[in-house]
Amino acid sequence: MISLKVNLGERSYPICIGENLLDQGELLTQHIPGNSALIVSDETVAPLYMDKVENALSNFRHKTLVLPDGEEHKNLNVLNTIYDSLLENKLDRNTTLIALGGGVIGDITGFAAATYQRGVHLIQIPTTLLSQVDSSVGGKTAVNHPLGKNMIGAFYQPKAVIADTSTLDTLEQRQLCSGIAEVIKYGLIRDTAFLEWLESNIDKLLDRDPEALAYAIERSCRNKAEVVAADERESGQRALLNLGHTFGHAIETGMGYGAWLHGEAVASGMVMAARLSNKLGWITESDVDRVINIIERANLPVKAPEQMSSDKFVDLMSLDKKVSDGVLNLVLYKSLGKAVISKDYTDAILRETISESY
Amino acid sequence: MISLKVNLGERSYPICIGENLLDQGELLTQHIPGNSALIVSDETVAPLYMDKVENALSNFRHKTLVLPDGEEHKNLNVLNTIYDSLLENKLDRNTTLIALGGGVIGDITGFAAATYQRGVHLIQIPTTLLSQVDSSVGGKTAVNHPLGKNMIGAFYQPKAVIADTSTLDTLEQRQLCSGIAEVIKYGLIRDTAFLEWLESNIDKLLDRDPEALAYAIERSCRNKAEVVAADERESGQRALLNLGHTFGHAIETGMGYGAWLHGEAVASGMVMAARLSNKLGWITESDVDRVINIIERANLPVKAPEQMSSDKFVDLMSLDKKVSDGVLNLVLYKSLGKAVISKDYTDAILRETISESY
Repeated sequence: MISLKVNLGERSYPICIGENLLDQGELLTQHIPGNSALIVSDETVAPLYMDKVENALSNFRHKTLVLPDGEEHKNLNVLNTIYDSLLENKLDRNTTLIALGGGVIGDITGFAAATYQRGVHLIQIPTTLLSQVDSSVGGKTAVNHPLGKNMIGAFYQPKAVIADTSTLDTLEQRQLCSGIAEVIKYGLIRDTAFLEWLESNIDKLLDRDPEALAYAIERSCRNKAEVVAADERESGQRALLNLGHTFGHAIETGMGYGAWLHGEAVASGMVMAARLSNKLGWITESDVDRVINIIERANLPVKAPEQMSSDKFVDLMSLDKKVSDGVLNLVLYKSLGKAVISKDYTDAILRETISESY
Repeated sequence: MISLKVNLGERSYPICIGENLLDQGELLTQHIPGNSALIVSDETVAPLYMDKVENALSNFRHKTLVLPDGEEHKNLNVLNTIYDSLLENKLDRNTTLIALGGGVIGDITGFAAATYQRGVHLIQIPTTLLSQVDSSVGGKTAVNHPLGKNMIGAFYQPKAVIADTSTLDTLEQRQLCSGIAEVIKYGLIRDTAFLEWLESNIDKLLDRDPEALAYAIERSCRNKAEVVAADERESGQRALLNLGHTFGHAIETGMGYGAWLHGEAVASGMVMAARLSNKLGWITESDVDRVINIIERANLPVKAPEQMSSDKFVDLMSLDKKVSDGVLNLVLYKSLGKAVISKDYTDAILRETISESY
């Protein structure tokens, strides 16, 4: 087992990465301060792994809650069913919420933990590649609003992240690829050596080679932990982790939550950011091709969805969380492996980029 | 104008107390970091004071939202209308939410500010005595759940609190008395000299003597600011501010939100806490009478509502936020002017206290 640490002073916590971690109950229970817990999972993951987590909690008063699966259910109504369960089961301020599932379960359960009784304990058990390399680490929690993705949320750190890589055995290939998008992201924004490693090993990841997957997860989490430790609440460089996300969130919202997977939308967005950076003269055509190439090899989309007009793109992007006083900051490439946050583009260049991305 | 400071490091902020402060626009606008704002008020307060706040914001892009009035509307559905308004008006991460109203508006608007885009700026303009002396200061924000009051919320500090005492001129007498309950609370938990002052001056407060009101607000805010600065997230002594609140919240939830005003329920609860403390031998019969006397003189209830059985009381209290690992901590009196957080009571004594409180 590999153990990394997210350094946030008294809110520091470990990320445990390894095979069959859910069979080691103590790994989970040592992070539960009270005597009770609620395990929140979804219809896909619960039949596979809920038993293991419940076994680990045999000495705790614990309840389970199974939510419908998918981004389209990450909303205030489903959030309210978590509060209902907590109150109906009289779980108090010292209880622990355990998020067992992918990014949707982690985000909504995390936000419930942030807000139930003004904050209870939280443990993340991510079971998808995307949540293991990205969303379970760093304390971003949220639900969607019909007008914008992740618009309602809080920064709230877990007590621990337990990434059992064996759970990836049951992951659909499309979900695996979605996770690889976020892995590629770390290479593109700040880790050229990792990008090169990915260019040599992407097929191993797609074939689920355990060693390659473990390395990709560890290296991604190291990158994420470093960025989060330096800028927990995204007042600066943490925003770099949103490469491709402003375009991507527009796709997710515009196409209807759940139609495109998060990683698919981000992949398409990372290509759009590359095209825009090229238009600004910051990266070359061959850099753009390199971005397209690695994303295509991961079986991820490199084009924008035809159903979405460029007007709709611009409109949805104007609601992004990176808009400040009406100005939209975009994450762009100064070079491959070095992303920047910038407003040094014109509306015309943005529109041109979008229209050339179909 | 009196200006106090809540000392919370980089999250410190001023409380401004004085007459006609809403006519001094700069007092408000100096605390708005961006170029936009949403003013949230209710149907009672908006017709009286919205114009003044809008005038102050003439140089900012600002929108208004008027919510229905009353505790029964402090819920997730009404909260969602704030998010709707923020998104429909494309108000971004650098916007400021301004809560113009009593405790309900402050709590729900504060929670919206804490969670919209994971946190935007917040200014509290309390217009009731209760919100000026208590709820607008200290960063507790929340909405109610059908099963428990303030069960969904966050700690989130404002940039400033602007308490214009002239707004109390339009306050209903019942609302004024409700606020006096929280004023009395400070005397009972930690400020014997203030309790004595209240015993001499309660009639002046009821008659809205401006000097007496200003003094009571200032002294209450000083007490609140001290406690909050020492324990922002209620890991210890801040819980003392909840004297009477565990009983009181049970009354508010059990009778239906809005039936009893918050201060009325707290008043009744402070008497119940006194009876229980007396049963434990901590305070004398005459101490109990002294609590009853000052509360009765403020035209506040000193008995529990007959419609609520003691079983219902105990059941609702078991859901209180001060329950930890199944044990309910109550705020009790070691002596008058010295409250403590205690679980040194038996279930039998609690039930006896409740049954003798009708």
